[in-house]
Amino acid sequence: MTDVLEYIFQRRSIRRYHEKAVEEKKLNQLLQAAMAAPSASNTRPWEFVVITSHETIARLRQTLEYGKFYAPAAIVVCANPELDTVKKPSSFDYWVQDCSAATQNILVAAAGLGLGSCWLGIYPREHRIKLVREIAGLPETVTPLNVIYVGYPAEEKESRSQYDPTRVHLEHYGSA
Amino acid sequence: MTDVLEYIFQRRSIRRYHEKAVEEKKLNQLLQAAMAAPSASNTRPWEFVVITSHETIARLRQTLEYGKFYAPAAIVVCANPELDTVKKPSSFDYWVQDCSAATQNILVAAAGLGLGSCWLGIYPREHRIKLVREIAGLPETVTPLNVIYVGYPAEEKESRSQYDPTRVHLEHYGSA
Repeated sequence: MTDVLEYIFQRRSIRRYHEKAVEEKKLNQLLQAAMAAPSASNTRPWEFVVITSHETIARLRQTLEYGKFYAPAAIVVCANPELDTVKKPSSFDYWVQDCSAATQNILVAAAGLGLGSCWLGIYPREHRIKLVREIAGLPETVTPLNVIYVGYPAEEKESRSQYDPTRVHLEHYGSA
Repeated sequence: MTDVLEYIFQRRSIRRYHEKAVEEKKLNQLLQAAMAAPSASNTRPWEFVVITSHETIARLRQTLEYGKFYAPAAIVVCANPELDTVKKPSSFDYWVQDCSAATQNILVAAAGLGLGSCWLGIYPREHRIKLVREIAGLPETVTPLNVIYVGYPAEEKESRSQYDPTRVHLEHYGSA
């Protein structure tokens, strides 16, 4: 059973990928994992742009400050306050949390599918948001939270938890 | 392998729990999973308060708007800008994303350990933040993102992805 934990520990930020394309079926499984995430009042404020064209991938690589390395696929995780599942105005207050949960599901699922991934933060940096809006063709109402690079890893990183007992408090802050 | 996907789909918000306590070992595994999450510049802005005392659990249950049901354990996921891993000022801008990723790891790990869980949103609601600060003894500099209820589930919910193809765009927004 602890398979799940193993994959959670195996998920590392991968910055070297093989050229091999990611199968459509696996990209779809990542999106299924994403949309299985919880969201405030089940708002599901998310949309996803899946990018695999060499041209657009190259634009991302040239443009993103911390994304200047090759990956065969990218998923832009976005939020849209105009979706019909969004209970205005208050449930949208949680969009960063909801979309981050969906993102983490993608990363853990990727590890389970033998893929590597790297979460590149976009929001709340205004200049990055503008650049990604241009590349992915997002309307002004749709905000990209991040770009996730995905592919078959060409580097090995050890599994780890980074568990730190000083970050854990029992019953009451400062108690342990 | 698709075990991971199965547990991602199995993770549902559970609102009925058995009284049986959650083993210390399992609570620790949840925290290991949490701290395996990625964070901006590996900032790890998180701290966790683990609550299992009947008295404090009862206070949470009486206090939290959407948490008025029994669970044997709760984890308060917090952010602290004063931790020595935080690169001031900019890496802390991502704390909601970082702590949400850690939270999602807890929820998926819980499913893998046969546990149920429920993410109760606290931030950005000021009145909820204040109440949780009081109950968990958090200093003013530490902000609770959420309270996660954890326990052995006393209700069954079907696995699901909620996959919606209208939320997926290929190469360019609006294209598919």
